[in-house]
Amino acid sequence: MIEVIGTTVRTNRLRRTASKLCSVESWKRRFPITIWLPKYSFEYLIRDAIAGITVGLTSIPQGIAYAMVAGLPPQVGLYSSIFPGLVYMIFGSCKDVTVGPTAILAALLAKYVAKSADFAYLASFLSGCFILLLGVLQLGFLLDFISKPVISGFTTAAAMQISASQLKPLFRIQGSSGNTFIGAIINFFKNIKTVQLWDTLLGVCSIGALLLLKRATIPVSPSTSERAARWAGAWLNVVRARNALVVFAAAILAFALQLYDITPFALTGTIHGGLPHFGVPPFHTVVNNQTLNFHEMLSVFGVEGFVMPLVAILESIAIAKAFAGSAAVDGTQEMLAIGACNVLASLCQAMPATGSFTRTAINHASGVVTPAGCFFKAMLVLLAVTLMSDAFYFIPRATLAAIIIVAMFSLMELQIIRTMWRNSKTELVVYGCTLWLGALVGLEYGIVCGAAADVTRALARAARPPLPHHTLKVGNQDCVSITITGALSYSSSQHIQERVRRYATTNGTVVVIDARLLHAMDLGVAANLIAVILDLEKEGYTFLLWNFKETLKKLLEDLHCGFDSHFVDGPSIDRHILGLQFSR
Amino acid sequence: MIEVIGTTVRTNRLRRTASKLCSVESWKRRFPITIWLPKYSFEYLIRDAIAGITVGLTSIPQGIAYAMVAGLPPQVGLYSSIFPGLVYMIFGSCKDVTVGPTAILAALLAKYVAKSADFAYLASFLSGCFILLLGVLQLGFLLDFISKPVISGFTTAAAMQISASQLKPLFRIQGSSGNTFIGAIINFFKNIKTVQLWDTLLGVCSIGALLLLKRATIPVSPSTSERAARWAGAWLNVVRARNALVVFAAAILAFALQLYDITPFALTGTIHGGLPHFGVPPFHTVVNNQTLNFHEMLSVFGVEGFVMPLVAILESIAIAKAFAGSAAVDGTQEMLAIGACNVLASLCQAMPATGSFTRTAINHASGVVTPAGCFFKAMLVLLAVTLMSDAFYFIPRATLAAIIIVAMFSLMELQIIRTMWRNSKTELVVYGCTLWLGALVGLEYGIVCGAAADVTRALARAARPPLPHHTLKVGNQDCVSITITGALSYSSSQHIQERVRRYATTNGTVVVIDARLLHAMDLGVAANLIAVILDLEKEGYTFLLWNFKETLKKLLEDLHCGFDSHFVDGPSIDRHILGLQFSR
Repeated sequence: MIEVIGTTVRTNRLRRTASKLCSVESWKRRFPITIWLPKYSFEYLIRDAIAGITVGLTSIPQGIAYAMVAGLPPQVGLYSSIFPGLVYMIFGSCKDVTVGPTAILAALLAKYVAKSADFAYLASFLSGCFILLLGVLQLGFLLDFISKPVISGFTTAAAMQISASQLKPLFRIQGSSGNTFIGAIINFFKNIKTVQLWDTLLGVCSIGALLLLKRATIPVSPSTSERAARWAGAWLNVVRARNALVVFAAAILAFALQLYDITPFALTGTIHGGLPHFGVPPFHTVVNNQTLNFHEMLSVFGVEGFVMPLVAILESIAIAKAFAGSAAVDGTQEMLAIGACNVLASLCQAMPATGSFTRTAINHASGVVTPAGCFFKAMLVLLAVTLMSDAFYFIPRATLAAIIIVAMFSLMELQIIRTMWRNSKTELVVYGCTLWLGALVGLEYGIVCGAAADVTRALARAARPPLPHHTLKVGNQDCVSITITGALSYSSSQHIQERVRRYATTNGTVVVIDARLLHAMDLGVAANLIAVILDLEKEGYTFLLWNFKETLKKLLEDLHCGFDSHFVDGPSIDRHILGLQFSR
Repeated sequence: MIEVIGTTVRTNRLRRTASKLCSVESWKRRFPITIWLPKYSFEYLIRDAIAGITVGLTSIPQGIAYAMVAGLPPQVGLYSSIFPGLVYMIFGSCKDVTVGPTAILAALLAKYVAKSADFAYLASFLSGCFILLLGVLQLGFLLDFISKPVISGFTTAAAMQISASQLKPLFRIQGSSGNTFIGAIINFFKNIKTVQLWDTLLGVCSIGALLLLKRATIPVSPSTSERAARWAGAWLNVVRARNALVVFAAAILAFALQLYDITPFALTGTIHGGLPHFGVPPFHTVVNNQTLNFHEMLSVFGVEGFVMPLVAILESIAIAKAFAGSAAVDGTQEMLAIGACNVLASLCQAMPATGSFTRTAINHASGVVTPAGCFFKAMLVLLAVTLMSDAFYFIPRATLAAIIIVAMFSLMELQIIRTMWRNSKTELVVYGCTLWLGALVGLEYGIVCGAAADVTRALARAARPPLPHHTLKVGNQDCVSITITGALSYSSSQHIQERVRRYATTNGTVVVIDARLLHAMDLGVAANLIAVILDLEKEGYTFLLWNFKETLKKLLEDLHCGFDSHFVDGPSIDRHILGLQFSR
C-alpha cells in the first residue's frame, strides 16, 4: 500500500515536472526579458538611462582597478563590465543587480593570473559552466550549507586582504602585494622605506575626497523649496558618480603636470583599447616557456578552484536579496543568468563577473526600473574603452587604490561580531575561524574551514536535541512527561537514552514519552529507546508512549516484537495514567 | 549578568571536575578490581574458573585462527588472548567482556602484516595509545557519530571478507586470499582447479560438526529429573567447548594418519611456543631489505590506520552493552581498559585485542561472576602455549578455516535490512554503501564513506526541519499557527523562510509563530525569519511571535531594533488575537 502511494507521488511529481517543462509560462520565467520588454515605455527608458549612466561612471574606474587587483590588463575589467551585463539584461530576474568584475573575485583570481592571463578567461568559462550546471540541476539548496557567519567572515577577510594589497600602489612601495592579508602587511613594513611622497599624498587625498563626497548629501525635507530640492537631487548624482569624478580630477592633474614634464605619480599607462578578440577561451597556455594543456590548467586550479564560482553565485544572490527582497529572487534563474554571463565573458576576454555590491547599490538608488539599465551602463563603458582608452593612460594608480580601499570599507562586516558575541558564541568561533584563516593562509582555506566548522556545529547540535520534561501528578501517581520533538538523528541516540534514564529515575514511576511533535527517528535512536525502556521496566517503571505517529509505531514494533502495547493515543494522557492505577 | 552566570557555571564545573579527580570513589571507579576483589568468595572462584576454562577452550583455536587471518605466527594470537585479558581484569568494568584477538581486527591488520610482522605490534601500541587518549580526554561521544547502519554494514562486510579469505585454507587452493571480499572470491574461482579433496572434505565436515554441536542442546523443563538436568548441563559445556573439540578431533586424526606416514591435510606446522620476548614495540622495521623508521611506518598506516582503534573500541562497547545492559557500561572506563590492554599487548608481541563477540557470549552463558574469569582463561591459554605448543603442529588449517567461517555467520547482520527497507530507506542506502564499498574496495573505505553518507543525511535533515502548522478561527479572524521546535540550524534558514511565506499567504492574515518548544536558532535563521516577517507585514499580514524564550527575543531584537513589539507571551494565544481585532 505504502509503495503504491509512493509510486503515485513519484508519478505525479514527474508529471508536474514534465508539464512545467512544456508550459510557455515557465519558459518565459527563464527569459525574464520577455516579461518586461513588451511593457517597456519611454519613461522607463529615461530612468534606466540615468541609472545606467550613473552606474557606468563607477564601473569604469572600478573595472580598471579590479583588473589591476587580479593582475590583468585594465581593459579586461572593462570588458567584464560590458558583455556579461548585456547577458544579464536577457536572463536576469532582478532589476537592481549590476554584473561586472568584483574585488573578491579579482583577489581569488590573482594567484592564477600570476602564472598566465589565460587562466582568467578559462576561470570565467569554467565558473560559468559550473554555475549553469548548478542552476540546471536545481542544486541551489547546496548554498544553504554556507552560513551567514562564514559568508561574513569570508567577505571581511577578502576586504582586508584586498585593502592590504592596495597599500603597494597607494604608497608606491616596492615588493609584491602578497596573496594573503598578512603577506601584504609584511611586505608593506619590509619595504616601508621605499614610500613615495607624491603618490601617498594623492592616494590619501583621494580617500579623503571619496569619504567626504560619500557623506556630503544635502538633506531634503518637505519644507525645502522645489528648486533647492532639484539641486539636492542633482548633487546626489554627483555624489553617486564620485568615483569617476575623483579619477577624472586626478587624471587631469597628472595630465597637467605631464605638460610641464613632471610625472610624480605612477600612472595606469597604455591601455590596449578597442574591442576584444572574440573566440573560444584558451584551453592551453604557456607558463615559464612550458605549454600547459587543458588537464594541466585544471590541476593548477585544483579543488580550491571551486571556491570562485561558489563565491560568485553567493555574492550575486545575497545582493539580489538585499535589494529586491527575498521573495522576488528566483535562485535558479539567478544561477542560470550568472552562469551565462560568465560563459559569454570567457568568449570575449573578460574576467569572471558577478553581482557587485557597490554598483548595485548605486543602480538601486538611481531609480533603475528594469534590467535595461545594464544596457546603458554597458554602452557607456564600451564607448570609454573604444574611444577614450588613451585618456586612461593618465589615471594615477594611487587614486585607483584609494577607490578600492574605500569600496572595501563598506564590505567589512564588523557589527555582526557584537550580535554574535551577545547571542551565539559558537557562531562567533566559526566567523573568527573563517576570518583569520582567510587572512593568514588564504581566502579559499578560510571559507572551506569555516564551512567545516559549521558542519561540526550542526552535527554536535543534532547529537544533543533538547528534551524538555516536566513532572505531573495524576491521582496519587507521580509521573514525568518527556517531550521528544522534530527528527532525531542517529548521533542523538546515546544522549536520549541517558536523558530518559535520568529523568525517569529521579521523577517517579510512570514515564510518559510525549511524541506529538516527533516527526522521525533513526534506527539507532529507536533501538536505544527500546533498550532503555525495557531496562527500566525491569526495574519497575511504567512507560506510556503517547501519540506516536503510525510510521514510528511500525518502526518500534519492527525492532521489538510486542512493543505496540506501550502506545497510547488520544488528546489527554491523564485517562491512560488513571487506567494504569485501576489495572493494578 | 549573563556573562556572570556563565562564569559561575564554568567555575562550578571546574570545581566539580576537580573534586571528582580527588575523590577516592572516582579513582576506585577507574580500577574496578578494587571494587569486586574485596568481596570475592570461594563460590565466585569456582564459577569464574568454570567460565574461564570454557572460554579458554575457544580462545586457543580462535587465537591461532585469527593470527593466521592476519598472516601472523599462531602464538601471536595466543599471546593476545593472555596478556590483554589480564589487564582487562584490572581495568575492565564489565564481567562478561572477553578481550582477545578478533577476526575483524585481524582482517584490518592483514595488509600491514604482509609487509612486516612488526606492524602488528606497533598497531597494538598505537591503537592502545589512541584509545587511551580518547578515554582520558572523554571523547567517547565521538563514537555516537558512527551510526547503527554503518556499524552493521561494516561488520557484515568484514564477516563476508573474512569468510571469503578462508576459502583458500578450506579448499587448500593456491593464490592469495586477497585484501577484499571480491579479491578473495576472484582468487577462489581463478584457482578452483587446485582444490584439494581431503582438506575440502575435512573443512566441510568441521563446519557440519560445528553447526550440529551449536544446535544440539538438550532441552531442560521443570519436569526433567535432577540427574537428566545435570547431564544436560554437562552437555552444554561440551557444546560451548565445541571449537576446541573439533580442533582436537581433527588434530588427533592428523596425528594418527601421520603415524602411518600419511599427510593428506595442510597442517598448522611448528609453533614457537614459550613466553614472548617482552620489550618495547618495534619503532623501526625492515621491509624488502629497506629499513623503515618510525615516521615511515606511520605513513604506511596512513589516515586509514585510525579505523583500527575506532573499530576496536566500537566492538568492545557494543559487546559490553549487549551483555551487561546499557546502564552498566561506563564508556570512558571501557576505553581506558581497552587502551591499556593494547599498550600492554604491544610490549609482549601480541596483536591488537578487543572484546570478542563469540567468547563474550560463551563467558556470559557459562555464568561468569567477575572479571576474574579472564584470569583462568589466560592461565589456560598460557599453559597451552608453553607446554602444548608441539601438539598444535597437527591442527589442520582447514579445520581452523571452518571455525572462522562458522564464527563469521553469526556476525553477519542481514535481518536489519528488512527493518530498514520497511522503515528507513535512506539508512538502507547508508548500510548498502558501507557494505559494498567495504566488500569491493576495502573495509576502511566502507566505514569512512558510510560515516560520510550519514553526515550528509544528518545535514540534509537539519536543513528541512518539520514545521507543523494548523489554521484556526478566533472571533472572525482566520489565523494560521506555525510551530517551530528544537534547535534550528543555519542550513534551514531558506526552508523556514519559504514555508512561513507559503503557510501565511495561503491561510489567512494573522500568523502565529508558536515557539513554546523552540530551543535555539542560528543567526542566519533569525535574520531570514525577520526578513520574511517584515516583508509580509508590508503586504498586510500580522505576526504574533508567541512564547519565545528570552535569549531568542534578545537575538531577534539585536538583529532588528524594535522587533520586540511582535512578542506575546502567556498560556493562550486567543486573547492576543482578539486584542488585535479591538485595536484595529
